[in-house]
Amino acid sequence: MKTTLSSTPNPERRPLDRSEYPILAGIASPEDVRRLSPEQLEPLCADIRRFLISNLSRNPGHFGSSMGAVELTVALHYVFNTPYDRIVWDVGHQAYGHKLLTGRAERFHTNRTMGGLSGFPSPAESEYDTFSAGHASNSISAALGMAVASALQHDTPQRNVVAVIGDASISGGLAFEGINNAANSNANVLIILNDNDMSIDHNVGSLNSYLAHLTTSKAYNTIRYKAYNALRRSHLFSEENRGRVLRFNNSLKSLITKEQNLFEGLNIRYFGPFDGHDLPRIIRVLNDIKDMSGPRILHLRTVKGRGFQPAEEDPAKWHAPGKFDPETGLRIKSDSNTPRPPKYQDVFGETLVELARKNPKIVGITAAMPSGTSMSKLQEAMPERTFDVGISEGHAVTFAGGLAKEGMIPVVAIYSSFLQRAYDHIIHDVALMDLPVVFAIDRAGIVGEDGATHHGLFDLSYLSDIPGMTIASPRNEAYLRHLLYTSQLPDRKGPMAIRYPRGEGKTIDWRCPMKQLEIGRGEKLASGTDVAVLSIGPMADAAEEAARMAGEKGISVARYDMIFLHPIDEEILREVAEKGLPIVTVEDGSIRGGLGSAVTDWLAENGYTNPVKRIGTPAGKFVTHGTVKQLHELCHMTPTDLLHAIEQLTQNQTDTKQPK
Amino acid sequence: MKTTLSSTPNPERRPLDRSEYPILAGIASPEDVRRLSPEQLEPLCADIRRFLISNLSRNPGHFGSSMGAVELTVALHYVFNTPYDRIVWDVGHQAYGHKLLTGRAERFHTNRTMGGLSGFPSPAESEYDTFSAGHASNSISAALGMAVASALQHDTPQRNVVAVIGDASISGGLAFEGINNAANSNANVLIILNDNDMSIDHNVGSLNSYLAHLTTSKAYNTIRYKAYNALRRSHLFSEENRGRVLRFNNSLKSLITKEQNLFEGLNIRYFGPFDGHDLPRIIRVLNDIKDMSGPRILHLRTVKGRGFQPAEEDPAKWHAPGKFDPETGLRIKSDSNTPRPPKYQDVFGETLVELARKNPKIVGITAAMPSGTSMSKLQEAMPERTFDVGISEGHAVTFAGGLAKEGMIPVVAIYSSFLQRAYDHIIHDVALMDLPVVFAIDRAGIVGEDGATHHGLFDLSYLSDIPGMTIASPRNEAYLRHLLYTSQLPDRKGPMAIRYPRGEGKTIDWRCPMKQLEIGRGEKLASGTDVAVLSIGPMADAAEEAARMAGEKGISVARYDMIFLHPIDEEILREVAEKGLPIVTVEDGSIRGGLGSAVTDWLAENGYTNPVKRIGTPAGKFVTHGTVKQLHELCHMTPTDLLHAIEQLTQNQTDTKQPK
Repeated sequence: MKTTLSSTPNPERRPLDRSEYPILAGIASPEDVRRLSPEQLEPLCADIRRFLISNLSRNPGHFGSSMGAVELTVALHYVFNTPYDRIVWDVGHQAYGHKLLTGRAERFHTNRTMGGLSGFPSPAESEYDTFSAGHASNSISAALGMAVASALQHDTPQRNVVAVIGDASISGGLAFEGINNAANSNANVLIILNDNDMSIDHNVGSLNSYLAHLTTSKAYNTIRYKAYNALRRSHLFSEENRGRVLRFNNSLKSLITKEQNLFEGLNIRYFGPFDGHDLPRIIRVLNDIKDMSGPRILHLRTVKGRGFQPAEEDPAKWHAPGKFDPETGLRIKSDSNTPRPPKYQDVFGETLVELARKNPKIVGITAAMPSGTSMSKLQEAMPERTFDVGISEGHAVTFAGGLAKEGMIPVVAIYSSFLQRAYDHIIHDVALMDLPVVFAIDRAGIVGEDGATHHGLFDLSYLSDIPGMTIASPRNEAYLRHLLYTSQLPDRKGPMAIRYPRGEGKTIDWRCPMKQLEIGRGEKLASGTDVAVLSIGPMADAAEEAARMAGEKGISVARYDMIFLHPIDEEILREVAEKGLPIVTVEDGSIRGGLGSAVTDWLAENGYTNPVKRIGTPAGKFVTHGTVKQLHELCHMTPTDLLHAIEQLTQNQTDTKQPK
Repeated sequence: MKTTLSSTPNPERRPLDRSEYPILAGIASPEDVRRLSPEQLEPLCADIRRFLISNLSRNPGHFGSSMGAVELTVALHYVFNTPYDRIVWDVGHQAYGHKLLTGRAERFHTNRTMGGLSGFPSPAESEYDTFSAGHASNSISAALGMAVASALQHDTPQRNVVAVIGDASISGGLAFEGINNAANSNANVLIILNDNDMSIDHNVGSLNSYLAHLTTSKAYNTIRYKAYNALRRSHLFSEENRGRVLRFNNSLKSLITKEQNLFEGLNIRYFGPFDGHDLPRIIRVLNDIKDMSGPRILHLRTVKGRGFQPAEEDPAKWHAPGKFDPETGLRIKSDSNTPRPPKYQDVFGETLVELARKNPKIVGITAAMPSGTSMSKLQEAMPERTFDVGISEGHAVTFAGGLAKEGMIPVVAIYSSFLQRAYDHIIHDVALMDLPVVFAIDRAGIVGEDGATHHGLFDLSYLSDIPGMTIASPRNEAYLRHLLYTSQLPDRKGPMAIRYPRGEGKTIDWRCPMKQLEIGRGEKLASGTDVAVLSIGPMADAAEEAARMAGEKGISVARYDMIFLHPIDEEILREVAEKGLPIVTVEDGSIRGGLGSAVTDWLAENGYTNPVKRIGTPAGKFVTHGTVKQLHELCHMTPTDLLHAIEQLTQNQTDTKQPK
């Protein structure tokens, strides 16, 4: 039984034009790379870059990282005997070039689309993709496991295992645990630190150098500098240290460029730093060190977006730029004249600033995602109350616990699937003390093109059994504002999670007055006599549409927005149960452990026997990538699917077959 | 609403005899400590040690760590203005002395008993216990949060925050994330590294020194040395590196004693190492550094069990020695003549060795718990196939993913509540690739005296929604063996969790032949016509007893051991559902998200309306400490409680009130 729900593969191949890509067009596998003469490698790199620019300008994806890793990618496949030798890409944003060299260039136009290539390395897709990627910092531990397995199985010749990890990912606790264990092994692991923050001028003194090291964009830098200046004007911190509170972040990188070398301190051989775009040199170094035994680290400095000037100049914007003009570098916005509703994350970010201005207890925490979560807005407005802790979700939550224990109201904004890293920290360092930490859970539910590693399907489930956790989801931007307002009120107790989806909200004019919601109280949206639909979050819209369609067929649907999963509104449940209505539950996440399960549990616990149909992503399944709309169809979560469920339940009801 | 299920507090106070404890008897709070003259402090330490020896010899607890931290504890309360200044104890095994000085000496005889003091620092118990403790490595992040909160709130005078962390805990990724963030802040955090492994001779060369550093006991050392010697005879690894495969463990400690100082590398001021038993010196140093601003690390070397010779000589045995004779140091075993059934963990450990001898793919992984999980048995038998990764649960799982990806069958033995740290790693680095990693989940369910942080209540829930995860629990030792046998068969797919409780099994002669179980197939243990009891794990015994009692009242109970939570045995569910039997589910863990919820979900999904009563720990509640028996009573999980549920459901059934 497959554990990932996927669609029919899109097998369409578009052969490369040999006149356009003279070398790349001849590469069917890394074997072909290794047959090239050294002189053909730079032209291959040029082909890859042209190909990426041409393709990604039309079919958007992660641009900057892969452009920066072209030489490294070619060198790895040239020097190592892939797939016998293993390359483990951390996160995998940088692995497009790797996909092109490993038989996937002709299908690359399907990247991140339904049935097409995954945007991340995926072992299900290719034997060259050796391990799951998407969540940061796992590559070293995984590579160590592979290398130890190879030694235990006496693989001959010795198998090389290479972990490629970026300078942000290496600050995660998991990467440290991996290094700490690798350093004490004699496993044949080569760790390549792909350090691409060096694109930003670092000759500006120690403090600004630190700032520069932390950031990846001018825009982001602008915020940082504004923050720094705001802080300079405040007197919260001592003269010499005032910039520091901003820098809850990665000190590892600064370490490796100083005399104290962390890696050598850890007894692991360190080579570098070298220019990661100097192909002959990388190849020489890799050849020099590949047959050494034991763990090694090779430190390469690369430039994000390398080879495309607009991207080199503004690497953050070009991390995943959307469509663009490959000649001019102008980014193409669709319908740029039609104003669009803001993203949920922006409503969150702006609302947080509004609240923080009035409530001095509020502080914001992000784990390396200030732009992605729009925590950047608070960072800009109140730098001294905003903490970017780097890729350290566990620390983010425990740190929040410490803040809350001393009377602050920390708002921790982390993507749903990344917050999984902090599950124990939420239990042990927040819930056990019933601390009022607010979790702003972005990217909850189906996220679309980023696929299985990035969907936020499990949060309703994994948060549900955490004692004292209030779990809520707004059906629109106004309720996001109401929930945030409610979460920070001084008389509210315990942790509270507010989950909301990726992408746009619904209204241009979202700046409504905020109001207090009663914790654990849902809302009746429509009365009805035949069936009740209970939804949570923006799936209320699908429920509304389904009810409309059902109404046309003469079925009267009662609709409720539960708003809170826990504590669940027992008055609504009792009202529906007492009437004996069949119930459809609707949620954007796994039906196991979320709203659907809470309803079946409650009914059983209270002796009711209403029929229930749960709509959401299927229990015990990952979900592939595609557009959100496509994936909702794949998971049978559309208004039409709801209508079917409604019809089925009301049909059954008239049959009165009970028990089945 | 309280989030922790607790009992009536035991308020009994036993005033200290002033003739026996002349100084300690006069200490009602740290204020009294600070009023002492410097000359009275050593006698206070002596009082504390005598008190601990006397008390713990009768009422067992964590002995060695607290004995080793006596001077540190006195010094901290003498120098710092507690509770205004904050002390955060990591894990908290070492905090008994702290409890004695903070108003709890007279209730210390209730330590770890129902209604008595918690065995760990607990903010619910005392304002001097500033943060949750029990899960390792959280103290630095928590302390950083507290210090930042204090700065933001302009606390005057400046509040000092001290994190006390041991040399094992500091190897966890969370501690690293905490240090990494603290180092880049100007927060007023003092990190005290309580390094107590130095009791073991380390003047034996680099390799053995490493070994010594990793271990905490002679017994354990013996295993290590045997392992080392076995490895010397093998030719798996190169001559110079052969010992290294053992040492997947903490290199941090070695670092801080070498010229390369990790902490100074991280730009955090480092002081030490100092003798942690030299009280005047610690006080002098603490006074020197307490008013410095910014993060600092103080490195103290202490001796576990200090002041009680048997404990100093064998610190591992005396970590938590049980009852002992305070004069002779002889440990007292109850009923030492009656042979007892082995612990589940030992059945696991011995069975694993049996299986590993026949299946070369099997490797064992423990996260700093070789004795606690009995992974020590495999470590002794097959050192090259056993990996102690230190306190790094996340790495343990991702490392296992790497091993499994290359064809091995890793068996990861971690306590249920500690495995929470690796939730995302199980999802992303194992389940997403459907890898055959076996999770041997020890200490599942109610664990007893260690209380809320250590009960394994949530595993059935947090594992339930992980795609492809097989979840099983044996009802006795034989089924533990059968499940382990089944888990490692070559045709089995995907991750598999086997959860079993702390403590003794049931049979002296547990070495039965192993047999293959069909995945997802439960067993009918008894037929019955009035009600069905579905249990998982050793709760089958309570179900049997309840059925017997029900039988005496004329109620005919069908009993099923589900064995597997996922995939759940749908044939059993259908059989029971079709008969319209009311159902009681029984599990040792939260009723939310485990067996009870799986049953209500399945019934709803399949259109059945049987009444269900779920027995387990209450949804959304932590559970206090006490004996397992007391806590089963508190949670209404006893055979009598089951009988009540059976009676209630059969009563309802005859009333045929439906819906309610």
